[in-house]
Amino acid sequence: MSRTVSEELRREVLEANLRIPRAGLATLTWGNVSGVDREAGVFVIKPSGVTYDVLTEEDLVVVSLADGSVVEGRLRPSTDTETHRSLYLAFPSIGGVTHTHSTHAVAFAQARRSIPVLGTTHADTFNGPVPVTDVLTPEQCATDYEYNTGQVIVDLLDRDDTRAREVPGALVAHHGPFTWGADATTSLEHAIVCEAVAEMALRTIALGTVEPPQHLLDRHFTRKHGPDAYYGNPSAT
Amino acid sequence: MSRTVSEELRREVLEANLRIPRAGLATLTWGNVSGVDREAGVFVIKPSGVTYDVLTEEDLVVVSLADGSVVEGRLRPSTDTETHRSLYLAFPSIGGVTHTHSTHAVAFAQARRSIPVLGTTHADTFNGPVPVTDVLTPEQCATDYEYNTGQVIVDLLDRDDTRAREVPGALVAHHGPFTWGADATTSLEHAIVCEAVAEMALRTIALGTVEPPQHLLDRHFTRKHGPDAYYGNPSAT
Amino acid sequence: MSRTVSEELRREVLEANLRIPRAGLATLTWGNVSGVDREAGVFVIKPSGVTYDVLTEEDLVVVSLADGSVVEGRLRPSTDTETHRSLYLAFPSIGGVTHTHSTHAVAFAQARRSIPVLGTTHADTFNGPVPVTDVLTPEQCATDYEYNTGQVIVDLLDRDDTRAREVPGALVAHHGPFTWGADATTSLEHAIVCEAVAEMALRTIALGTVEPPQHLLDRHFTRKHGPDAYYGNPSAT
Amino acid sequence: MSRTVSEELRREVLEANLRIPRAGLATLTWGNVSGVDREAGVFVIKPSGVTYDVLTEEDLVVVSLADGSVVEGRLRPSTDTETHRSLYLAFPSIGGVTHTHSTHAVAFAQARRSIPVLGTTHADTFNGPVPVTDVLTPEQCATDYEYNTGQVIVDLLDRDDTRAREVPGALVAHHGPFTWGADATTSLEHAIVCEAVAEMALRTIALGTVEPPQHLLDRHFTRKHGPDAYYGNPSAT
Repeated sequence: MSRTVSEELRREVLEANLRIPRAGLATLTWGNVSGVDREAGVFVIKPSGVTYDVLTEEDLVVVSLADGSVVEGRLRPSTDTETHRSLYLAFPSIGGVTHTHSTHAVAFAQARRSIPVLGTTHADTFNGPVPVTDVLTPEQCATDYEYNTGQVIVDLLDRDDTRAREVPGALVAHHGPFTWGADATTSLEHAIVCEAVAEMALRTIALGTVEPPQHLLDRHFTRKHGPDAYYGNPSAT
Repeated sequence: MSRTVSEELRREVLEANLRIPRAGLATLTWGNVSGVDREAGVFVIKPSGVTYDVLTEEDLVVVSLADGSVVEGRLRPSTDTETHRSLYLAFPSIGGVTHTHSTHAVAFAQARRSIPVLGTTHADTFNGPVPVTDVLTPEQCATDYEYNTGQVIVDLLDRDDTRAREVPGALVAHHGPFTWGADATTSLEHAIVCEAVAEMALRTIALGTVEPPQHLLDRHFTRKHGPDAYYGNPSAT
Repeated sequence: MSRTVSEELRREVLEANLRIPRAGLATLTWGNVSGVDREAGVFVIKPSGVTYDVLTEEDLVVVSLADGSVVEGRLRPSTDTETHRSLYLAFPSIGGVTHTHSTHAVAFAQARRSIPVLGTTHADTFNGPVPVTDVLTPEQCATDYEYNTGQVIVDLLDRDDTRAREVPGALVAHHGPFTWGADATTSLEHAIVCEAVAEMALRTIALGTVEPPQHLLDRHFTRKHGPDAYYGNPSAT
Repeated sequence: MSRTVSEELRREVLEANLRIPRAGLATLTWGNVSGVDREAGVFVIKPSGVTYDVLTEEDLVVVSLADGSVVEGRLRPSTDTETHRSLYLAFPSIGGVTHTHSTHAVAFAQARRSIPVLGTTHADTFNGPVPVTDVLTPEQCATDYEYNTGQVIVDLLDRDDTRAREVPGALVAHHGPFTWGADATTSLEHAIVCEAVAEMALRTIALGTVEPPQHLLDRHFTRKHGPDAYYGNPSAT
């Protein structure tokens, strides 16, 4: 079987997509995860409009990083494919991308507010607020709309790969969250965290927010990320 | 077996009704879906007060479009049957109707507020706010109450079939959402979207709303609907 | 087997108790349903502190209506048993009682606010607001506390059986909802509706409430209750 | 098999950890329960970063109470292990500790507000508000951060074992809830109650709070705790 990507990557992308409804982040067919194979110059993504309960590895679509053309697969890829592609092209460290319409994160996107850092749950994953993009211009909507949806995120982060690693997600204004990570699984887990911290933030805002001290937030981010990280078990994820 | 409607329509209406509780839109037996066969001049609808876990195809009731009489079935049809019938009569493009008491959509109906368009999730399905009807008058409540419940929706849309296609749902004041579509399944999916966007809108309102640009909303509605639609897969729904 | 109550009543009370967690109304072991046999002068109730997943018919406790003593059963009855008993004694039409700590109804009880009538979902079951009791006095707390918890409900309704039928539930201040009905099953379903309308009311209040017209509410209550009711199917419940 | 702790304790700690996701308190791998064997001078705790669906008794880690070293187990213990240890050392009556990031309790922690006593649901378990700690200082974050996270709780309670029994939980500012109890199971159930009362309190605050009378709260705490308790069944838990 002359496959363009490894069985392992296909399986990971399928599994990550199936975790969207299991994590309560899906309505109908909304949401999609992709994973990239940079050596092969392609990424694997969910097909458009397919329900999760019937989704198989065979349905996944392999897309060219270079020009967005379908390299393998009999279905049309997710309409958000070009957004994934523009993120992969701008940020070399990204191995996976997830997009959902999870309700609390969407509420922040619709209110054009970033998700503020209010505690350690947030700081464990995002080293700063989850920012919200500018509104797409009429021109950005008229041509290459989906690619431009990625570009407003790229612009928001000044195409800075380090910032993309430190805050692995953003809210597209009036649309919803896109998250990314070292691989498809991690990008999906960042989508789960993004929704969880949006939910906590919305409830905290109802109670009245207080600024958390930066030294506490730094402590949490560095104990999970970077050279001195000591969270988790090598064999346990 | 001399059935008045096709086995396929019965199966679709049953399945759509069973998706109400699965989608989290049901409390007790509340909610119902119908599907129409315009050639036969009848529609199929859930019986009144039957719980979803015991509902079978045999329980469904076939009702005359012309006069609302029961054509086939040993149970009484949903009390909302006349509301469905008035919508079918007013809007020729409608193939299915769904009514639920989903909690966020009901909250907007009870507050007599339409669900505003705050983002692309809404614009993907509804080309404008989900509007709320006038309150029924004492006369409309006294006689043909359920038929008149449909009429206040028909009046709200000026009996305009195009508007009914562009915004496939409405909130009956102090009651709840009715949605419709090309068939029973689509009407049910519009009920799911209606509740999802009501939930997102309620949370966005808590954060403070900002008007989304019309060019973004238009882009989303037209990529899923009309001659230039490119969302989904023909074989995938 | 010399049982004091019918197998049917036991089975109904067990089933109604098991529906508490299934309907999402339970935290831990909180919540209980009872059903009465007025001829035998006893009622059947959940034992205290038993988890729903291990609850059996054998665990149910049969209690004397006259004096609250245990007539049959090897376990201690629910601590709320005396509250159920005082309601049975005051209102002859009651055949079942349910108590839960469902979160939205408790919020109204803790805020000492009745659940207002904001739409037809409410009016289908409760012919008026779900009222909240006075706070129990130090004396009422000191002696026969659980019996007095029922008494503040009885006082709230002026011991009027008609009112108890028209509005089959009340909130005990700073405690939570008690609902009742013609039998155990109906009392449980009223607890489900009470939580649903509390949830809808809380969300409507966030959007701004508008008074619904009385003629609409009357229409809904009378189409489900009384001599002219036409909701449901005789064989379908 | 030369195990340092009893099979019973291991099984209880495993089961209590597995109840975290079942009770809806978990996102990803967040949350952990431990149980202590004071005679053996050790406690058993969840390993760091392991998902609940694959967690086994073999994965649990046995840690020394005296110095926090791993006595048995091939995985790294939870990063929160030192917080558990500091609580065990300060409060001799504690047999189990639970930490979660349950969303409503975290919202109070992030707003640096204690969970107020608004009704009997709260008073049944917590004899007073669930208090919130001071913010950790830069020094407390820099060295022995996790141990100091326990210390701010110990300081909040003035190292008073009686207070720890009366209010078996606290919120660490900008972090989340820690609860404890006579054993691992009880500490987990206190985490469930903590989240439930936080949820109820948040909704009550939206409606407007009213102070409950102290005599009602006292009645509820004493009917479940202390020499005159009469809630529950000896054999039924």
